[in-house]
Amino acid sequence: MSLAHESDTIAAIATPEGEGGISVIRISGDGATNIAAQGFRGAITVDKMSSHTAHYGRFVDEHDEVIDNVVVLVFRRPNSYTGEDTVEFNCHGGRYLTKRILEATLRLGARAAQAGEFTKRAFLNGRIDLAQAEAVADLIHARSERAHRSSLAQLNGVLSDRVIRLQKQLIESIGLLELELDFAEEGYEFTEKSKVTEQLRSAISQITDLLLTYSTGKAYRDGVKVALAGAPNVGKSSLLNSLLQEDRAIVTDIPGTTRDIIEESISLGGLLFNLIDTAGIRSTKDLIEREGVRRAEEQLSNCDILVLMLDGTRQVGVEEVVAIRRLANAVEQRGASCIFALNKIDMMSSQRNPILEVENITKRHDVVEISAKTHQGLESLKDLLVRKALRNLPSASESGVTITNARHFSALERTAMSLRLALETIESGGSGEFVAVDLRAGLDALGEIIGATSTEDILNSIFSRFCIGK
Amino acid sequence: MSLAHESDTIAAIATPEGEGGISVIRISGDGATNIAAQGFRGAITVDKMSSHTAHYGRFVDEHDEVIDNVVVLVFRRPNSYTGEDTVEFNCHGGRYLTKRILEATLRLGARAAQAGEFTKRAFLNGRIDLAQAEAVADLIHARSERAHRSSLAQLNGVLSDRVIRLQKQLIESIGLLELELDFAEEGYEFTEKSKVTEQLRSAISQITDLLLTYSTGKAYRDGVKVALAGAPNVGKSSLLNSLLQEDRAIVTDIPGTTRDIIEESISLGGLLFNLIDTAGIRSTKDLIEREGVRRAEEQLSNCDILVLMLDGTRQVGVEEVVAIRRLANAVEQRGASCIFALNKIDMMSSQRNPILEVENITKRHDVVEISAKTHQGLESLKDLLVRKALRNLPSASESGVTITNARHFSALERTAMSLRLALETIESGGSGEFVAVDLRAGLDALGEIIGATSTEDILNSIFSRFCIGK
Repeated sequence: MSLAHESDTIAAIATPEGEGGISVIRISGDGATNIAAQGFRGAITVDKMSSHTAHYGRFVDEHDEVIDNVVVLVFRRPNSYTGEDTVEFNCHGGRYLTKRILEATLRLGARAAQAGEFTKRAFLNGRIDLAQAEAVADLIHARSERAHRSSLAQLNGVLSDRVIRLQKQLIESIGLLELELDFAEEGYEFTEKSKVTEQLRSAISQITDLLLTYSTGKAYRDGVKVALAGAPNVGKSSLLNSLLQEDRAIVTDIPGTTRDIIEESISLGGLLFNLIDTAGIRSTKDLIEREGVRRAEEQLSNCDILVLMLDGTRQVGVEEVVAIRRLANAVEQRGASCIFALNKIDMMSSQRNPILEVENITKRHDVVEISAKTHQGLESLKDLLVRKALRNLPSASESGVTITNARHFSALERTAMSLRLALETIESGGSGEFVAVDLRAGLDALGEIIGATSTEDILNSIFSRFCIGK
Repeated sequence: MSLAHESDTIAAIATPEGEGGISVIRISGDGATNIAAQGFRGAITVDKMSSHTAHYGRFVDEHDEVIDNVVVLVFRRPNSYTGEDTVEFNCHGGRYLTKRILEATLRLGARAAQAGEFTKRAFLNGRIDLAQAEAVADLIHARSERAHRSSLAQLNGVLSDRVIRLQKQLIESIGLLELELDFAEEGYEFTEKSKVTEQLRSAISQITDLLLTYSTGKAYRDGVKVALAGAPNVGKSSLLNSLLQEDRAIVTDIPGTTRDIIEESISLGGLLFNLIDTAGIRSTKDLIEREGVRRAEEQLSNCDILVLMLDGTRQVGVEEVVAIRRLANAVEQRGASCIFALNKIDMMSSQRNPILEVENITKRHDVVEISAKTHQGLESLKDLLVRKALRNLPSASESGVTITNARHFSALERTAMSLRLALETIESGGSGEFVAVDLRAGLDALGEIIGATSTEDILNSIFSRFCIGK
């Protein structure tokens, strides 16, 4: 590692904040054992404990006053999460006493850990690479099956292995090139040219394959934003409730839901869908002029899927048609998906079908007939949502890797660009030196994913996403 | 233990709910090792692990799909929290994956633990007594130094030891009595009478000593409710903010703050004070008639301390005087404390002092001159709050025990009552048999504290206060 070894000892409450049976205070660094030894009173002292053993005792403050009965766990370097000496105190899960123990460790010489700092140290000490470190945060934040599965695969090195394989291929190409450069002065021909172009074409194709997984990978990691829009009383809230009702068991709450905008999450096909009930479409006038609707428009302008609802028992007014066309076009232009949901089909007379009135709009989109009340057609709608979310794109590259992270996507794009430049230069008979420069730029961009070329700035921006104590 | 051994295996997420570095899933019972073994993949199998050792590996579901990389900790009976075989999985602290692991253990045969069930088992298996078990919940909920200290002392057996010593004394008295009863038929005199009466007097005095600690103990455990009342613009919110500002560092948030009523917590003298900013006193008419004020009255009617604020720069109106008298009297009648805070003394002219206008009310109460703005007099107010909260009563009995729990208080009251009855019977020359019945009733009531005579109903009401996973 080119980065300096961080020798101070850090401490943090590693468990979620709140009350529970157990909380864990984690200490890591050269001084971890010493600090823990000063706070712990038990049958044996912390420095005599074997690695990976648990011991019951008491944690005392500097006045020898007991703060809690604890179980202490010792992990000696390098066999710990951070790769450093690490001590964990399992105490009762109360806010007050947990904080008291943490404060005691700080007075004994530990420094309060920054967000993600334990994982950062695991990276700096070579326990995991950067892509794996990022996966830890994704894994903790994962709220759906696919988010969980892709982050765990990344943590366990699936992406890193793929990157390392690509690196080896590029290094081989560079090697062949440099061989040519060494002998070029002596008038030798570039005999390995076809081999290098073949290697580069293969690498570009593999990277393109990876890049293609990103839009689904992004849906895995961040969830899919679905906006519900339609005239008042068309049944938006009923649909939201029906969807939630069926999936309530696997739904988790979102903290920080935007005021005025109802946002709920459901899990469909292993994906997390964030459903936003926007203000109703009233009239074109309303839609353009009113401030309250502006916020809804904002939501509509960045959704992944727009569900436009129509009331099967009512005619569609002229202004509504205008509003619907406007919305559908805007979504389509952004490359997002639009679905029409014809609601209240349980009460719809066969003679009247509002879809006919907007046929020239709906014909370019999928239409599902539903009844939010009787739940008829709900399964079809769910299936359609999942299909639209995944956009019929590959969910993993041929090697089983899914790109979920914008940073990785950008690095791969830049790698591919450099390789294409290198390929063009070779094919146009350009200098081997130029080719080598491009190949090295590609190799650097690729290395950013696993942290081979990362600077401190990149690191800090990555680890600030973490919880304190991880 | 008279209660049946619970042989099923229970599992729960033992750490607070939410996202963090680490979460712990705890499994306890005869099947814990077996269930853990089926979910764990590592270098060695769970059944081969020594007690109190930690092992890195992966937790897989029934389809052998990895849910997370985990550290597994094994505690073999009887050396575990519950006294049963216990296995803890430390996984990444994400809601989704933590739930997935718990669900997998349930499918492998564990039952979802009820609130407090691990601690209940610790009690049923004789690891701790009932008073200690209750202390676990108090310790977790503790939000101030004194709440923390008294619950920890109780967990570590300070109260239990005291109860056991009293039990021994009573058993000795009963022994002396029974000796007399055995020989009574044969015409012997009750020679040990004076010794028994002396023992009972001593026991009653010791119990009274303990009972006296309850009002402070209750303040330790539950905190002190302080209501702020006064005319609009008298400076209630400013005072609240000034107090909070100085103590923000040690204040924790209270979830579930009552709507319309502002409630904030501060820590003073190691005690938690819950400050309630009630609706202002406007006029007697207002105070009696208005619905909004009814809620404030409710708060006023159960506060421990009422702080009546006066504006040092304004005269007190007739209606305000009536309202103040009404409030002060009501509080006094309940035996709660009343403090007058004369605010804005930084702007008060020496000629005018509103206290004079309500002198016949304030003369029975403490008056503090403050400025919420300049913080003048704030320390005096804080000191007074702490003194009023502790009511100059003993904070611990001579033996260092503080009673914090209404159940313990009631049991001690009933014990003392039975002992007094026994004493009266002896002194009035009543039958030794009646004395023995009263003494046994006293012994039973005393035993309830540590669970020697508790029924399942008492147990369930106690453990339902706990978090799941404890």
